[in-house]
Amino acid sequence: MPVATRPLAGSDARKRSAPAHSPIRVALLGCGTVGSSFAHLVQQPSRGREVVITHALVRDRRQLRPSLNSAADVIDEWHTLFDAEPDVVVELLGGLEPARTIVRAALQRGIAVVTANKSLLAVHGAELRSIAAKTATPLLFEAAVMAGVPFLGTFARRPHASAITGLGGIVNGTSNYLLTRARDERCGILEALADAQALGLAEPDPSKDLDGVDAAEKLVVLLQQFGRFDVALSELETEGITYVTPDDLARARTLGGTIKPVIHADWSHDLHAFAAPAFVADTDLLASVDGGENALTVRGTHGRLVFRGPGAGAGVTAATVLDDVLEASRPAAQSTFTPLRSARVAAPDTPWFIQLSAGRLPEPVEIADLLASHGVFVQRSTVDGAGSRFSAITLTCTRRRIEAAMRACRAAAGCQTVLFRAVEGSRHGR
Amino acid sequence: MPVATRPLAGSDARKRSAPAHSPIRVALLGCGTVGSSFAHLVQQPSRGREVVITHALVRDRRQLRPSLNSAADVIDEWHTLFDAEPDVVVELLGGLEPARTIVRAALQRGIAVVTANKSLLAVHGAELRSIAAKTATPLLFEAAVMAGVPFLGTFARRPHASAITGLGGIVNGTSNYLLTRARDERCGILEALADAQALGLAEPDPSKDLDGVDAAEKLVVLLQQFGRFDVALSELETEGITYVTPDDLARARTLGGTIKPVIHADWSHDLHAFAAPAFVADTDLLASVDGGENALTVRGTHGRLVFRGPGAGAGVTAATVLDDVLEASRPAAQSTFTPLRSARVAAPDTPWFIQLSAGRLPEPVEIADLLASHGVFVQRSTVDGAGSRFSAITLTCTRRRIEAAMRACRAAAGCQTVLFRAVEGSRHGR
Repeated sequence: MPVATRPLAGSDARKRSAPAHSPIRVALLGCGTVGSSFAHLVQQPSRGREVVITHALVRDRRQLRPSLNSAADVIDEWHTLFDAEPDVVVELLGGLEPARTIVRAALQRGIAVVTANKSLLAVHGAELRSIAAKTATPLLFEAAVMAGVPFLGTFARRPHASAITGLGGIVNGTSNYLLTRARDERCGILEALADAQALGLAEPDPSKDLDGVDAAEKLVVLLQQFGRFDVALSELETEGITYVTPDDLARARTLGGTIKPVIHADWSHDLHAFAAPAFVADTDLLASVDGGENALTVRGTHGRLVFRGPGAGAGVTAATVLDDVLEASRPAAQSTFTPLRSARVAAPDTPWFIQLSAGRLPEPVEIADLLASHGVFVQRSTVDGAGSRFSAITLTCTRRRIEAAMRACRAAAGCQTVLFRAVEGSRHGR
Repeated sequence: MPVATRPLAGSDARKRSAPAHSPIRVALLGCGTVGSSFAHLVQQPSRGREVVITHALVRDRRQLRPSLNSAADVIDEWHTLFDAEPDVVVELLGGLEPARTIVRAALQRGIAVVTANKSLLAVHGAELRSIAAKTATPLLFEAAVMAGVPFLGTFARRPHASAITGLGGIVNGTSNYLLTRARDERCGILEALADAQALGLAEPDPSKDLDGVDAAEKLVVLLQQFGRFDVALSELETEGITYVTPDDLARARTLGGTIKPVIHADWSHDLHAFAAPAFVADTDLLASVDGGENALTVRGTHGRLVFRGPGAGAGVTAATVLDDVLEASRPAAQSTFTPLRSARVAAPDTPWFIQLSAGRLPEPVEIADLLASHGVFVQRSTVDGAGSRFSAITLTCTRRRIEAAMRACRAAAGCQTVLFRAVEGSRHGR
């Protein structure tokens, strides 16, 4: 299809009703790894309506960008971005600003927005969804969580499938890759990270992957979508993986499980959630999600659904963004958002994976008695290192209670303690 | 919302552009288990636009149907069905006729159709998709495969996610339940069936579940959707589960796997597919899909995606049908079908799970030699029953070759043989 003669931009902001044979005019924000991959992909033989990048906002205009078509206007100031009246703004800048300001402005003008920016959605999701709803403008973000697995938009369109009361999963591929490698190679997380960076499997700055913030942001987005909750990221129990040792992984194995970077939420009564590395039994399906793979389980009226697949990667993210662009450009496409409700989130009661170590520990039965006197009951335990190490999975209890019990152990037995959450094994197979 | 004063039906058949606040007028075909569940569900507090059943087509008008609202017109002749100009026809009759005739007539009139009828789609899918495309009318069938897991409509809307070259899975819950029960209780399939029927977990007439036709029909629908193939059901290698014995399951276990009712297809080169019970290694994710659960794996450019969840049940099917009704009623909703291409489907080369038994079998090494002389190579094997039973998984070969080798074994050793396909274990965890 010739693109030299572009259709004249009308004065009506609702370009989604433009004729289906004209190309979709995209303003691209950000031309990093995913942005370049997207720019490359739109120039491949079309699998749907043709897409043309008319403007690309970049940090440095002088830097060469071979992936962009020559017709694209490369700019480093966003104020002229809407002059050419794009059909869709694709936001791949990442971070909060200027992403928030530009996305707000686009939605207020009735210009559809596609973004893969989980940070933006986690912090400003309620505001952006509200503007999109008011102006009936599509705001799509399939690539923000499990970029390679289409499910978010599906649930947004299907209210009966979305009668969900809880979810769990592994949504950060980098931390899952590092824990898998640390387990299999019996090495430390930072050593695994160095290998992963050398292989191009981890970002140059992986801090949000390591400290659990990336997973927590995705959890907030999922809580917006499935529970209509507006939750503050800072209120969510969030822990990273850097302090997980090869020894923790080995001990988890002796208890029939491993440690995975888990997100968990349940709102069948009050809302409880966390994002943290947790003990997962080998019989749980999350235990088999290894390397960079992601998985999400949602629980509702009709049982449990599982979505599983590649979590990230520039190619798959770009393809998902492009599918969102096509979706946003359908005739009469509009947002399907209903208002979020502001919600408090508490840390859930769970079983715990505990480890005690000392030169000489008390007998296991004495440890179990001491724990029981603080209301913590041992489900199963192992002892190794000639009696110097005690590891156990407890029954479900509050964080306050397990922490008091750990303090008591340290005081009474002079031991060191390590504490992880454990997630309940799925009853329905792996 | 009051429904007594219905909006006047306009002369325009395109009711999808009716104002979003008016109820969606549904003509319901069939009021069996799923139909009754659907009729009940639309009277619950609304999760989307209100839905009203204006007409219900049934076999016997005199039979009481307490699930229907009193305003619904109960008819047993379909010719008056379109007089009231419904927005959506919901087809839950099952079978080919009169379903085909009515669905054709509706689509030709531009009336959206929602169906859960996999038989209809497997046999007349190409024709119905073509009419829907020509008249730009929605034809939705999310409930036809893995009724509880929304994925078909998602891929239909997302051309880049749909760059798929193969799939595999378990899509018949009844046969999976029966094989799971036969394995765990060490009983025969028919005994398991009697138990399942007593518990209401199997249809009164489960023949399509038992003989593999239900799974084969779903595979044809998936080939239409993911490969754009128009494949004749009769050309698909289809086998049922009735001949699977507790002994087969026990022997599969000694080889580190089990037998599952599998569908499989690959079109990275030519199209190959089958629907049959097959050996699945314990390390494959399908091995853990037990009971009535379903799972589907799709493989494409960006890796492997897995969708898993409840396969059937009246409640979940009705909810999925209702979500399709809402989807079909969105402003400017229309079919997204591109034409199917007529295709031949061949049976694939796979590994095989073979069993030989006789009063006295030759030594395993002699059996392996005999098989090798026919170009069949043993991957791993076990011998039990004091040397009277030999079980093995072979390397990949053609059906012709394995059958010739089995004949040679029967002739040379006077033994009985049993043959199943084996699916390759997934390399990426379970």
